[in-house]
Amino acid sequence: MDRSKLSRRTWLATTSGVIAAGLLRTQADAVRLEAQETPEGLRDPSKVPGRPTSEVGARAPGEQPRRLVRNQNLSSSSRTPLQDLNGTITPADLHFERHHAGVPDIVAEDHELLIHGIVDRPMVFRMADLKRYPCVSQTYFLECSGNGGGAYSRDRMPTDITVQALDGLLSTSEWTGVPLSWVLREVGVRPGASWMLAEGGDAALMSRSVPLDKAMDDALLAYGQNGEAIRPEQGYPLRLFLPGWEGNISVKWLRRLEITDRPTMTRDETSKYTDPLRGGAARQFSFVMDAKSVITFPSYPYALPDRGWWEIKGLAWTGRGRITRIEVSTDGGRSWADAQLQRPVLSKSTVRFRHLWEWNGGEALVLSRATDETGYIQPTVHELWDVRGERTSYHQNHQRAWKVASTGEVTFGLGDLV
Amino acid sequence: MDRSKLSRRTWLATTSGVIAAGLLRTQADAVRLEAQETPEGLRDPSKVPGRPTSEVGARAPGEQPRRLVRNQNLSSSSRTPLQDLNGTITPADLHFERHHAGVPDIVAEDHELLIHGIVDRPMVFRMADLKRYPCVSQTYFLECSGNGGGAYSRDRMPTDITVQALDGLLSTSEWTGVPLSWVLREVGVRPGASWMLAEGGDAALMSRSVPLDKAMDDALLAYGQNGEAIRPEQGYPLRLFLPGWEGNISVKWLRRLEITDRPTMTRDETSKYTDPLRGGAARQFSFVMDAKSVITFPSYPYALPDRGWWEIKGLAWTGRGRITRIEVSTDGGRSWADAQLQRPVLSKSTVRFRHLWEWNGGEALVLSRATDETGYIQPTVHELWDVRGERTSYHQNHQRAWKVASTGEVTFGLGDLV
Repeated sequence: MDRSKLSRRTWLATTSGVIAAGLLRTQADAVRLEAQETPEGLRDPSKVPGRPTSEVGARAPGEQPRRLVRNQNLSSSSRTPLQDLNGTITPADLHFERHHAGVPDIVAEDHELLIHGIVDRPMVFRMADLKRYPCVSQTYFLECSGNGGGAYSRDRMPTDITVQALDGLLSTSEWTGVPLSWVLREVGVRPGASWMLAEGGDAALMSRSVPLDKAMDDALLAYGQNGEAIRPEQGYPLRLFLPGWEGNISVKWLRRLEITDRPTMTRDETSKYTDPLRGGAARQFSFVMDAKSVITFPSYPYALPDRGWWEIKGLAWTGRGRITRIEVSTDGGRSWADAQLQRPVLSKSTVRFRHLWEWNGGEALVLSRATDETGYIQPTVHELWDVRGERTSYHQNHQRAWKVASTGEVTFGLGDLV
Repeated sequence: MDRSKLSRRTWLATTSGVIAAGLLRTQADAVRLEAQETPEGLRDPSKVPGRPTSEVGARAPGEQPRRLVRNQNLSSSSRTPLQDLNGTITPADLHFERHHAGVPDIVAEDHELLIHGIVDRPMVFRMADLKRYPCVSQTYFLECSGNGGGAYSRDRMPTDITVQALDGLLSTSEWTGVPLSWVLREVGVRPGASWMLAEGGDAALMSRSVPLDKAMDDALLAYGQNGEAIRPEQGYPLRLFLPGWEGNISVKWLRRLEITDRPTMTRDETSKYTDPLRGGAARQFSFVMDAKSVITFPSYPYALPDRGWWEIKGLAWTGRGRITRIEVSTDGGRSWADAQLQRPVLSKSTVRFRHLWEWNGGEALVLSRATDETGYIQPTVHELWDVRGERTSYHQNHQRAWKVASTGEVTFGLGDLV
């Protein structure tokens, strides 16, 4: 191969308006290229036999994404590295965690689900029973109701926070399970029933009240995640899954459902997961996750190395169905442009959005805002705080912002808007 | 809790026609239940603190799916455990492998893609260059052209073969990458170009010729798989991805694309990946994977423990777009019933299908057949062999069969049809 024929890469505009990234090849690169023909070139991977096949694969040594672990307390969380991921699927071993008494070690063969209360036939189900039912698989997001809420407030507005630390309590999986409605039909829900208590088999006995309407709609008794069995941190061997609702109510390690005629008012829905409002009132049973979007690139601590075209990328989702529009602003919300949505846009799942932006080297404040099929528009931080107050860490789905300095350095920019 | 109120599970018919699986609780179960209230009950996972959060999760000890490794030769394959998986996504560490000289160890920062030939501007791209382009993400199947072909022939028809050993060279991922057309626009493909040589950076220098039409259509320069970086066995850091086409042409560890005016007739497309036909002719460049379906349950070595309702489950896909219909037969192909397709049905991806079957305890021969949006119907083994012959192991997409004995034992049943 005659290397002299290779063009060095330069800025090239194309007719489509898509302008390519040009990173000039340095002299050092050229030297290194030549070195491949020296004895050191034996490191060329095409010159040596590769590794054999294996029963289970592993990531490349240079690709080791990690969840962000906040602490090692019994009640803790870990966050998905949103900045490292493409597309929408979250690898199961990077799905965020939130548990109140650690991850229990459950043997599937020993696990049982009791369904009782206002029913004709109280029953105990084993995993083999549940797996004999017909099942369905759907891709859904799961988000903790506290996602993005605790990391800052009007009084404490960090600039050095990553999208993982801020909004990493969000993940997306293909979930497989039995529609709960099919199982409830079998136990025979009796007239007068209107709620259901869901109880986990962890040491916290995590317990939430679920309106029966949701249980009969799209609720799953889920045992599969991204093709395989649900991971232990996600509720192995069985979790409730309530699409579009706050994560904690999709009770993990599910061991009991009690059909009731009222909410049970458990510790987990009174001492927490209740949202303070302005004026001392509180909103309870705020189940649905409203439309939200986050920008994953550019975000702290990335620094844009040069001016020109960059693709702003992010994720959007809504618990109320489908995202219909994503807009991006690079001037702090004064003007907006429509971003592209990656098709297909699934209901109650994440959608990847992208927007090509020509950075002129000046300061910029980059935001995104989502609209869903109900017409709901992701609010600004002021719009949300005016209603909800800034003292709660739940359901803080307002627009996020990243500030790009003239140096290219990116920092969390919400402080510029507060 | 008063356990005396718990009903033992019995066969229960529901109005929907969905009949539940009834596994009678044994006396031993009842004894075991009581034992939870003895000191041994301390093993109850709700009575002990769980494990803390972690940076990377691991599967439950009881859930350890494995690829099936045929041998440890330099040219080898490993197969996805289709019988263990739900839904459609294949966990990245269980994606099938097929390589001709092992898995090379490539450092992404050192990897380069040369694009040259009949172009205005030959160029070398590094991974950082490619990642600065806009990207897309789509869920696609990938299947080896030899999938299911080498395991049997008219002369040798095993009964003790699993769906993994038979058809496990099939996997599905959400792939992320740059549309190749955008990059080719930048190097400037010149008039007269009609083909492209794609060369891998492994020790086999795996090389295939690709019609330029496909390269300009939906081909990807892919670097992402199920959210994360492509795994080493799948071509890290960069592979060509040609949706719907036979797996080997989606060249892994991609290091060179040469734009040409004819196919290059490489070793990899003459010594193999050419399909013998009846009468001594051969079919070359048989790129597209035609419609196919496989039943993953029931399959060897499972044995149905009792009569009654069972859900027949499987996967279907076509390289020509969308699957439109799946039919299931339990009488060796004499009569057929429509199976349910899990929505959404994506183009050039797998779709999960299901069919409720009431097994009466007699012998049964269970088949599935797929129809795609072009009207193509997955052929019977005779229909396919009449045209293609049974001496090739490529593109053997005919209907598979599982035989259910009166004992409930399931064996590969194609021999009953040959």
